[in-house]
Amino acid sequence: MRCDNGALWTLVSLALIGHSWGMADHQQVSEPVRFGVVTVSDRASAGVYEDRGGPAIREFLNTHVMTPHDYEARLVADERPDIEAALIELVDEHRCCLVVTTGGTGPAVRDITPEATEAVCERMLPGFGELMRSVSLQVVPTAILSRQTAGVRGGAVIINLPGKPSAIDDCLTAVMPAVPYCIDLIDGPRIDLGGGLEAFRPKGA
Amino acid sequence: MRCDNGALWTLVSLALIGHSWGMADHQQVSEPVRFGVVTVSDRASAGVYEDRGGPAIREFLNTHVMTPHDYEARLVADERPDIEAALIELVDEHRCCLVVTTGGTGPAVRDITPEATEAVCERMLPGFGELMRSVSLQVVPTAILSRQTAGVRGGAVIINLPGKPSAIDDCLTAVMPAVPYCIDLIDGPRIDLGGGLEAFRPKGA
Amino acid sequence: MRCDNGALWTLVSLALIGHSWGMADHQQVSEPVRFGVVTVSDRASAGVYEDRGGPAIREFLNTHVMTPHDYEARLVADERPDIEAALIELVDEHRCCLVVTTGGTGPAVRDITPEATEAVCERMLPGFGELMRSVSLQVVPTAILSRQTAGVRGGAVIINLPGKPSAIDDCLTAVMPAVPYCIDLIDGPRIDLGGGLEAFRPKGA
Repeated sequence: MRCDNGALWTLVSLALIGHSWGMADHQQVSEPVRFGVVTVSDRASAGVYEDRGGPAIREFLNTHVMTPHDYEARLVADERPDIEAALIELVDEHRCCLVVTTGGTGPAVRDITPEATEAVCERMLPGFGELMRSVSLQVVPTAILSRQTAGVRGGAVIINLPGKPSAIDDCLTAVMPAVPYCIDLIDGPRIDLGGGLEAFRPKGA
Repeated sequence: MRCDNGALWTLVSLALIGHSWGMADHQQVSEPVRFGVVTVSDRASAGVYEDRGGPAIREFLNTHVMTPHDYEARLVADERPDIEAALIELVDEHRCCLVVTTGGTGPAVRDITPEATEAVCERMLPGFGELMRSVSLQVVPTAILSRQTAGVRGGAVIINLPGKPSAIDDCLTAVMPAVPYCIDLIDGPRIDLGGGLEAFRPKGA
Repeated sequence: MRCDNGALWTLVSLALIGHSWGMADHQQVSEPVRFGVVTVSDRASAGVYEDRGGPAIREFLNTHVMTPHDYEARLVADERPDIEAALIELVDEHRCCLVVTTGGTGPAVRDITPEATEAVCERMLPGFGELMRSVSLQVVPTAILSRQTAGVRGGAVIINLPGKPSAIDDCLTAVMPAVPYCIDLIDGPRIDLGGGLEAFRPKGA
């Protein structure tokens, strides 16, 4: 009967729409991946100094990450508990798969970002610091003063950068090709690069 | 008297034989040095995957170590206690002067070989990891993801290699020239290299 | 009255002299900066071996540090408590802004200088060890056996060098351009270099 047919079509239509929505959820209107940016600076967090490191990181990622993404940004003083709390919040609550810090990596008494990073990471990745110092050393001999490191917490890579905006591009350009595969290995979302950088994934990986 | 002469000759002969045995013990029929090879892999240890890293290490050492040697090989899962137990057994019981591991050096949650290595070593040798990452970086940008390290336990050097057989040759070629002198310094047996590699020993050392 | 005028002039003169003295204190007759040199060697400290590392460090610093300076030198056995005590004394009591050690950085069982250094430092500077090994590696493959590091204690940078005098020049030449700015950052005295080396200070620093 017509009425029954109508009801049937309605059910089929709803099922098709539901199927279509389901696909869209994963393929087209999937949520953007989330990146965390943490500026560590007594002066910037007190408002006496403009944060230039954080925006430099976002500009780099906007240029080189092709995967849709958004940001959670934090601005904290050079206080270990504050840095740790920001990192934990960005990874555990906001599910960032990549958190980049700027500042607090030097030898001065207030510089404490590497210690805060190590405290919240489950495993450290010494090759990041080695490569970033090596690349910065081509520019300034004082690159060896940076204690910047990187590590993994849950599904996130945390990378320290120096505070100087000029060093941010050099450092991220050097390590970024390895970051997407690192995020693959810790079961994070697929990230694709562009703008002159290519994500390296070993064959068969 | 003849009888006494005979007894004398017997004693002299026994002494000569004993002397000859003694020399042979250290010079000709001395025991081969022993190397340990530890493959760390959940899949290989479960039998679902062929161990290719362990054989690649043995092939490298067979090609480049001229000193008579044999192997103790172990295949363990990515479990810290299992890795530590294998390393301790190979060094303390089997008196290996060199133990090379393959696998478990990445950033993934199951990768735990560097931590196990550090736990059983008395002193770490950060230069090994730095050089091996630097050499691998000429091949793949993801070399910075490797957390491989090296250290000393008693009379043994323990060196971590990545799991990929292709990286094993590059890494061992880079560090091997320093290994024999390192073993000298920890009172291990003399090792000589060949097959295109030469052991470096400082003059006067 | 004349008497009063005379008293007034005396006061003015004393004030001027005092002002002049105050200036001289900081500008012309300021105390020389102080460097610590610690030779770590069982044999040298027992007198069976001449300390050649310590003098090599002093010669390097005399050639390349233009700022007036003097030295506190110590010669200790490869004993962790002795090394730690020497480092603490040189930094905390003698107010050295730079302490350079030589010896005890290898893999042997008595080599313990890096551990002693890390124990007395508040923060480590891994870039120093990385660069010094990298530079030494151009000379000898066994450079990777050195565990030398650097760190900060209070207002002092502590740098480990190997025991071999030939390595001292290579290592210090590599890191020295970054040392004056490092000392600036930890509120130490201004150091200027020369003799073919230049202290690097970032613009605006």
